[in-house]
Parts: sequence; C-alpha cells; structure tokens
Amino acid sequence: MDGSAASLPDHRRALIARHAPTLEAAIAAVQTRRSWSPFSDSPSTKIHGPDKPGAGKAAFEARLGTTFDLGQPGVVGEFGEEVSPFTQQPLNIGYLRSEPEALVADATIAMANWRDTDFELRLALCLEMATRLYDRNFEMAHAVMHVAGQSYTQAFSGSGPNALDRGIEALAYAAKAMRDVAPSATWHRSFAGEAVALEKTYVLAPRGVGLVICCASFPTWNAYPAMFASLATGNPVIVKPHPIAILPMAIVVETCRQVLDDFGFDPNLVTLAVDTLAEPVAQHLVDHAGVQIVDFTGSPRYGGHLERTVTGKLLFTETAGVNTVVIESVADAGMDMAAVARAVARASSLFSAQMCTSPQVIYIAPDLFAPMSAAIVEQIDAIAADPVQAAGIMGAIQGDVSLRVVAEARDAVSGLSSVRILRESAPYAHPQFPEARTLTPLVIAVEGGQHWQLYAEERFGPVLFLVSKDSGEAVIEATWLARTRGSISSYLYSTDEDFIDRATPAYEAAGANLSINLTGAMWINFAAAYSDYHVTGLNPAGNACLADLAFVASRFRIVQRRRPAAA
Amino acid sequence: MDGSAASLPDHRRALIARHAPTLEAAIAAVQTRRSWSPFSDSPSTKIHGPDKPGAGKAAFEARLGTTFDLGQPGVVGEFGEEVSPFTQQPLNIGYLRSEPEALVADATIAMANWRDTDFELRLALCLEMATRLYDRNFEMAHAVMHVAGQSYTQAFSGSGPNALDRGIEALAYAAKAMRDVAPSATWHRSFAGEAVALEKTYVLAPRGVGLVICCASFPTWNAYPAMFASLATGNPVIVKPHPIAILPMAIVVETCRQVLDDFGFDPNLVTLAVDTLAEPVAQHLVDHAGVQIVDFTGSPRYGGHLERTVTGKLLFTETAGVNTVVIESVADAGMDMAAVARAVARASSLFSAQMCTSPQVIYIAPDLFAPMSAAIVEQIDAIAADPVQAAGIMGAIQGDVSLRVVAEARDAVSGLSSVRILRESAPYAHPQFPEARTLTPLVIAVEGGQHWQLYAEERFGPVLFLVSKDSGEAVIEATWLARTRGSISSYLYSTDEDFIDRATPAYEAAGANLSINLTGAMWINFAAAYSDYHVTGLNPAGNACLADLAFVASRFRIVQRRRPAAA
Repeated sequence: MDGSAASLPDHRRALIARHAPTLEAAIAAVQTRRSWSPFSDSPSTKIHGPDKPGAGKAAFEARLGTTFDLGQPGVVGEFGEEVSPFTQQPLNIGYLRSEPEALVADATIAMANWRDTDFELRLALCLEMATRLYDRNFEMAHAVMHVAGQSYTQAFSGSGPNALDRGIEALAYAAKAMRDVAPSATWHRSFAGEAVALEKTYVLAPRGVGLVICCASFPTWNAYPAMFASLATGNPVIVKPHPIAILPMAIVVETCRQVLDDFGFDPNLVTLAVDTLAEPVAQHLVDHAGVQIVDFTGSPRYGGHLERTVTGKLLFTETAGVNTVVIESVADAGMDMAAVARAVARASSLFSAQMCTSPQVIYIAPDLFAPMSAAIVEQIDAIAADPVQAAGIMGAIQGDVSLRVVAEARDAVSGLSSVRILRESAPYAHPQFPEARTLTPLVIAVEGGQHWQLYAEERFGPVLFLVSKDSGEAVIEATWLARTRGSISSYLYSTDEDFIDRATPAYEAAGANLSINLTGAMWINFAAAYSDYHVTGLNPAGNACLADLAFVASRFRIVQRRRPAAA
Repeated sequence: MDGSAASLPDHRRALIARHAPTLEAAIAAVQTRRSWSPFSDSPSTKIHGPDKPGAGKAAFEARLGTTFDLGQPGVVGEFGEEVSPFTQQPLNIGYLRSEPEALVADATIAMANWRDTDFELRLALCLEMATRLYDRNFEMAHAVMHVAGQSYTQAFSGSGPNALDRGIEALAYAAKAMRDVAPSATWHRSFAGEAVALEKTYVLAPRGVGLVICCASFPTWNAYPAMFASLATGNPVIVKPHPIAILPMAIVVETCRQVLDDFGFDPNLVTLAVDTLAEPVAQHLVDHAGVQIVDFTGSPRYGGHLERTVTGKLLFTETAGVNTVVIESVADAGMDMAAVARAVARASSLFSAQMCTSPQVIYIAPDLFAPMSAAIVEQIDAIAADPVQAAGIMGAIQGDVSLRVVAEARDAVSGLSSVRILRESAPYAHPQFPEARTLTPLVIAVEGGQHWQLYAEERFGPVLFLVSKDSGEAVIEATWLARTRGSISSYLYSTDEDFIDRATPAYEAAGANLSINLTGAMWINFAAAYSDYHVTGLNPAGNACLADLAFVASRFRIVQRRRPAAA
C-alpha cells in the first residue's frame, strides 16, 4: 500500500487538513510552554449549549444494567464488578471479556497496515479520537464519577479536557520526533576517486503492541498520552483498565474503534482487555512476546515489580510518592497565613487526596506551627462543613481500601507521644447522593521528630501530616522522601529568597518538581499540559515524563535501505 | 554557580563560538542525511602535512613498556596484558587500576558542577575533545592496529574520523533534544475569574554516571557516541575497555581529561576502569547504584545477559548478528557478476570479517551458484595473493579466539554431505610484520538446505558461507536470521525491480537495514555517520541506534519549578 499523504483518499486527506491547525498549535505550545488548549474545561452550558449535559447523563444511565459490547474478537465471557462510590450500588454493566491471545493476535495483524500508513494520518486520526471524546465528555464525566468517585466538575475537567490535553501534548512530541527523520536522501561522496551516489530511504517502524495499564482513580489522564503516543508511532494498543474502573476506558476504546472504522482502518488497533480482581490479566499481557511497550499507572507495588522485572521492552511507569509542603515563612507582601492555609487545605481535600499530586506531609517551621496548623484545619473544616463545597472538592472515596488507609493511619498514631490528632476524619453528607462513600481528611500533628516513619510512605487517601520542623531540616527530609519514596509535586512557601535559593538545588537533585509560594484560585496541584512536566523520572514516582521527547522517541525505530542513485 | 553562557569566562565563551559552526553543520547533516564530515578520513600527508605520521608512530612507540598514568583516583594496582596481533609480542604497557568505588564516587562529585554547566559549553567541550582526538589520530591508528589488528588505513579512518563522526552525530542529536526544552516560560490563565501568572523554570538534569563498555575489535566507534551523548547531557562517564584493547581508550580518556582540566573542569568526569580477563570489573560497575546509564558493545553472550537483567537503568546495546547477502540476479545494465563478486569478497575480507557489518552468509540463486561462487573465491584469492592488498584490507586476527572460530567452522563441516570447502583459510605473509597473526577467509559452500545450523549463528571471524537457495526462500531465511539472531547490515542484489519490491517489506519487518545492488569503490559495509543509521533496535543485534533522538533523549530529564510571576 502506498501510504503517502498525496495518494490518500479525499476523506483521509481532509482529516489531516482539519486537524492540522490543532497539531501545529500544540507543537507551538510545547515549545513555548505557554497556556493553550483546544478545549474548554468548564462544563458551562454557555460553552456547550443547553442539551449536552442532559444527553451525557442520559447516555451514562442508559449503560447501567446492560452489556457493553465493543465488537472485539475472541470473546469468552462477561465480567463487571464496578460499584459507584456515590450510590454504593453496582453499575451492573457487563463487559465482554476477550481472550488476551486474540487481542494480541488481531492487533498484530492490524499493525501491518497501520505501520505503512502515513504518520500524519495516524496523528490526525488520534486528534479525531480526542475531538470525539471531548464531544462525549458529559457522558465521560458521569462515567468517571461513578467508578472513581471524582466530583462532577473534577471528572468533567480533570478526566476530560485536561487529560485529553495530555494526549494531544504526546501527539505534538510524536509529530516532532517523527518529522525529525528525513524520509529520504541522496548521498554523494568520492571513494578512491570514484564518485558514489546513493539513494537512501528511511522508514519509521513500530515496535509492537502497546499495553496501557490504567489506574483506578484517574484512568484517562495517563491513558490518553500513552495510547496516542503508541498509536501515532504505528503501534496498536491494548487498554487494560483497573477492574473497578472499566467504564471510562470502555467509552474511550469504543470511540477510538469507531474513528478507525469510519476511516477504513482495522478497529482492532485499539482494544480493551477486561479482568477482575480475582483473575488479573495484566501480567499475562506484559509477558506476551507480541507486547513490546508497556505503559503502567498504578500502585508502587505492582509498578515496582514491573520496573524490576520487565526487560527487552519499553516500560513507562507512573506510580506514586510522598508529596511534601515546606512552610518556612509567610505573612509578607501579598502572602498571608490564611492564603497559604487555604491553598494547602484545598489541595489536600481535592478528591479526598486520592491524587498523585496530593500533598501528604506539611512541614511547618516551629514558630509558625500552632497558628498555621490551626489555620489549615480551619480551612478544611470550612470545606467539610459546606456540603455543596465538599461535594465539589472532595467527591467520594473510591473504594474500601481508602477507608482502610485512613483507619490504619488513625490506629498507627494512637498512644504515640508528640503525635496528636488535630482533626478526625468523618463522612460528610453529600447533598445529591445520600449513600455516597465520603470521608473528610484526617489531620495529624507530628512534633518532635522521632515519628517520621508514620508519614514516610504513601498513604493514598485523605490523611494529612502536619510536621513541626526547622525548615532547613524539613527541606532535607522532604527531598530525601522524594529521592527514596518518589514525589510528583513538591511545594515550598517562603518569603526569604535566600532560603528559596538554597532549597531549590536540593529539590532539583531529588528530581522533584517544585511549586513555590502558590496561593489563589488555581489548585496548587494543578498540572497544565503543554507547560508543566509531570514526573521527572529521577525518583521512584515513575520513569515516564508527561510529556517530553523521551516519552515518544523510542516508541518507533528507523529502518533504512540504500541503493545506487539513478544516473 | 551561574552556568549560563553570558556569565562564562572568556575562554569558555570562545570555545562555544569556535565549535558552533561544526555543531550547526552536524545538525544540518543529520537533518538532511547528506554527506558531510569536519574531518578527512585519508592519512595523506597532503592533508595532514609531512610530520604527523612519524610523530604519531613515535608517540605510540614511546608508550611501549611504560606505565600509562591518567592521574586517576583510587589507584590500587597496575594491569596490562595487551599483545599486538601484528608482532604477537606484549605491548608491556601497564595501566593503573583505580578502585571502581573511587571512580564512581569521584564522578558523582564531579557531576554536581557539570550538571549546572551550560549545556552549550558541555557540547563545545565534547567537540574540543573530538578535535584533539583527530589531532592525535596517527598515534591512535597505531594504537588501534596493535590491540585490535585493524590495518593501518582502516585504523586511521574507521577508528578515527569515521568514529569521531559518530560521536559528533550524537552531539548533534543531544543539542537538538536539549535545545528543544524551553528554559523558562511565563504562563497565564484565568481560574474562576482570577488571572493567574506563573514563572516556570525547566532545568535539565543528568541521570547519573554513564558506563561505557567497549568491544575489543572496534573500541572507539561505539565509545565516542556513547561518551559524548552522556557527557553532553550532564552525565560523567566511566570507560571500561576490553582488557585486550585498552590503549586506544586510554588515549581517549587522557585527551578528554586534559580538555576538562584545561577549561577548569574536574577531569574525573571521564575515567578509565581497567580490568583483566581473569578479574573482570564490568558487572560490579553495572550493578553500582551510582551508575545509571550503561552503553555496551560486545558479545551477544554478555550483551544478552545485560539485556535480560538490567532494570531501572538506561541500557544501550550493540551486540552482533548474522549478516546476509542475497544474490538473486546479476549481469544487467552496469552490474555484472565480477562487480558483485568483488563487492562481496572485499566486504567479507575487510578486517578478516571481524566487524559487526561483515557479511557471513551469501545466498546465491541456484542457477548462478557455480559461476558466482567461483567468482567470489577468485576475488578473495586475488586479495590474499597480494600481500600489500591483503595487509591493507584483511589486517590481522585480533586474538586466538578468532583462530578457533575458523577452526571450529572447518571441523563442523567436514564429512557433511552437500557441504564443500571452496577455499581453505590460511595465513598470508604480512609484508611489514612477519609475525602477524593473519588468516584469509574460509569459504564454505552449502547446497541442499538441511545444514542451515552451520551458519545460523554468528561466527566472528573470516568464515563465509555460500548457500545455494532459491531467492524467495533466501529472503525468507535471511530475514528470519535477522529477526532471531540479529542483523546490522543486509545486502541484496537483483536486477528484478518487482523482486526488490517484494523483498523490501520483509527486511523492514525484520528491522534489517538493507543495501541494494551496491558495487564499486565504496565498501558495501561502510556506514556513514550523519546519513546511515546503524542498528535498528528491532532485532537482537542491539537496542541502540547510532544515532537517533532516542539515543540521547532519555539521557537527561527535566526538573521544573514554578512560582507566581512578579506583578
């Protein structure tokens, strides 16, 4: 097949032209790191019109109690064990389970044509998938809510446009890396007085099937960049969602398959591998010779296992870490204690701290400890006491495992000297879903210094440690935690520029991305695609950065041929 | 330390300016893949002047019987067991052995300043190293000759400018990848009606110490790109040469350390780790937590071990494979049997087939087999019978291990039906070194098809199999060998464009770089930096391509910080 753009049918050429402005703007954005997005992350009907919110909700509700059939090969059963954190009722959606062998086999067959397809068309097809997913984003918001527990607004923005932006960011880098390879060259040199002229052709080749293993709490955010990076560079993708959070990824796979089918490509380039907690399928796929790329987001336990055992394949991971805040000084021009307390309280409350960027340990200078800790607790109390605000910020607790995280932290501190509970964790009454599994943050004060083991491991849930510590020591401990446990977001508050200058190199050496003196309307743990790099790869939080050239450059390889040039 | 270019002392700024034209030309060359080099690969005195050849030889000879002291830390002994393949006498050069712990520790200390150094200066320092190595290339040629066995002209070109070009090629990609990261940005967005403005800083961070494990037969060629790629991106480098081929890399390390010292940098950014066959040190360094990048060139046995066991670190490998030639048809316009036979014979004789690009299996269409195999043998005989030509092309046999490779192949075929010896291997009389360890190619004819095991593994030495096989079958077997055993260079001769079109996708799918219908003055296994990609990473010949963006993009990471923009 001749896959060059000039030889494409009209509707394929038109697709490239339609998405070209978006792709070029994304490339400009990652170059300048300025603020940009082709989407709006507000669910306002002023933007989306009056009908979409209701239609999206209806589409979600119509799924409940049905079988989700993607038309995939090798179906051998039906699985589904999702329970809504908001209703605590099963969704009763059954997903047809495909034999993993069938998915790999059919993906490999589909790759033969996909590898020969002009990569500009592959990029455009991914952009079309992103566009259609944006169009289904109200439906997606309800799906994410009812498997992950995110609030409606967060599910709409964070799991919608913000996540799609990460996908398009990856496409921008994929475009840059692939366009960087000259498709052909004529080469002239003289050897022993003889003029030699060679025609050389450089072909981009995929590595093999890409496996995308998604986390339960924020499935789309890491899946889009991984899927689009692999697809654009010629690799088919098998999506393996967490068994308690399948629906969002089923919607994604359905949309991608529809786009492929609409433009005459084999939909088995994108498939869904469902499993259950009792019968996991991930390792089988990881070990499969046809799978050559693994993108993993999830627990440090399984992620670490992959990092220690996967060889001979590309492996991209994001696991977790212990994110810290160091509050050295406040109450200077434009920055006061309440503003810092509010920033920390909101970030720690967002999605009940079930995020990879949630702060867990707040180091406070001893002279500030009493008033600052009181202010933080006060701000959390204010959110928790207002059910509408609490619902919008904290959402729900995804699973019983997070309830146990809180209970275990509570147990661990009882009876310890120099450790106090500043705020007990308790459910809040969700205004819309009375049965919602909710829990406001447990806040623990650690004074003294001997109890660092309490907070020196990730506690993935609404548990916050306020630690009284000299700020120089705090930076040392915070960066040690980043280096040894991993960190995705670190935070520092200081009015002393010299202190900031001394602290910065320690964060850099730990590979810890740092936000300094952030307060105000933006969530301090908001990471903007095209501008904020997510994960450095220099500490145990993961080896993959969203997104840089390294995230895409090795997903394809170059095969060349050369022959004498025609005289 | 402020490492930005503007704040640099004059001599450092001047260095960047001096090498800027070379770097920009190299970047243009890798983009266009046109022929370019800042060097000449001819040893002609018309280019280098009358004095350099003699001075280089004298510098080499002055080393013999002395201790090579690089001024490294942690010296605990003196090793050295090199034997010249040309004289079969020990070089009697002693290399001071540094404790591996000391090398890693001092490299890590040196990295602190190196990481903060403007990367444009790091690039310029690497270019300065390349320039000085070119200046020492006559000395290097003798060093390579007398450890590896390459002929003088090949050692001069292939281990000199051609290898340095691979290093500068890697610098071009390193420059592209690092320049692609904006150093800073101002970011504006509105959140809930509040205008947010952030200043963001993106810092390039090294991964850690880079270990460069060199092969014995062609040490500089893969070492330069690995060393320069790691150094330019901020990582110190420990060079671990093969114990029987230390001298060339000792000269390289000496030169790099001198450049670093001259410009006020810690020379321990580049060190040499010597060992012996009896007491190897490579694995200890591979396992060291401070070592984060491993570049390996050498045997499939140890390379495969690294590929199966190294996790959590960057690993770049080039091992080996079975390179094939398929001769489907000849004797058409401008291409005749003698020209093809000459091309194959020369490539198979070059450095006595001790190259990763040497052909090992020549498939010949049955109707061509008798005359073509006779012509190939005739061409090899012609080279072998002319001592001056033989010396210039075949050079010497590096070690007894290669003699054994030939003897084992000879033993394996004796008594087999449908297998014949077409040409016995024998020493040729080197005109300059009567004691040289030489051996002309053993040529084995395989007719029938049942004895494919004979040639389906790499035989690293002057052993050539001529296999009579239908060309369609031959392409299938050649690409199967590439896929399962690895291939760095594959060759195809055909006058049938339809056959070429049918064969090409099979080579692409096997990740095999293909040369079609090459004859004439250029060695068919010559691979030009800036134009020919070396190793695809898609088959067992290695995972690293010289050079593409993937070879450099993950050697550094990005750490960011952000804070409110000044009002």
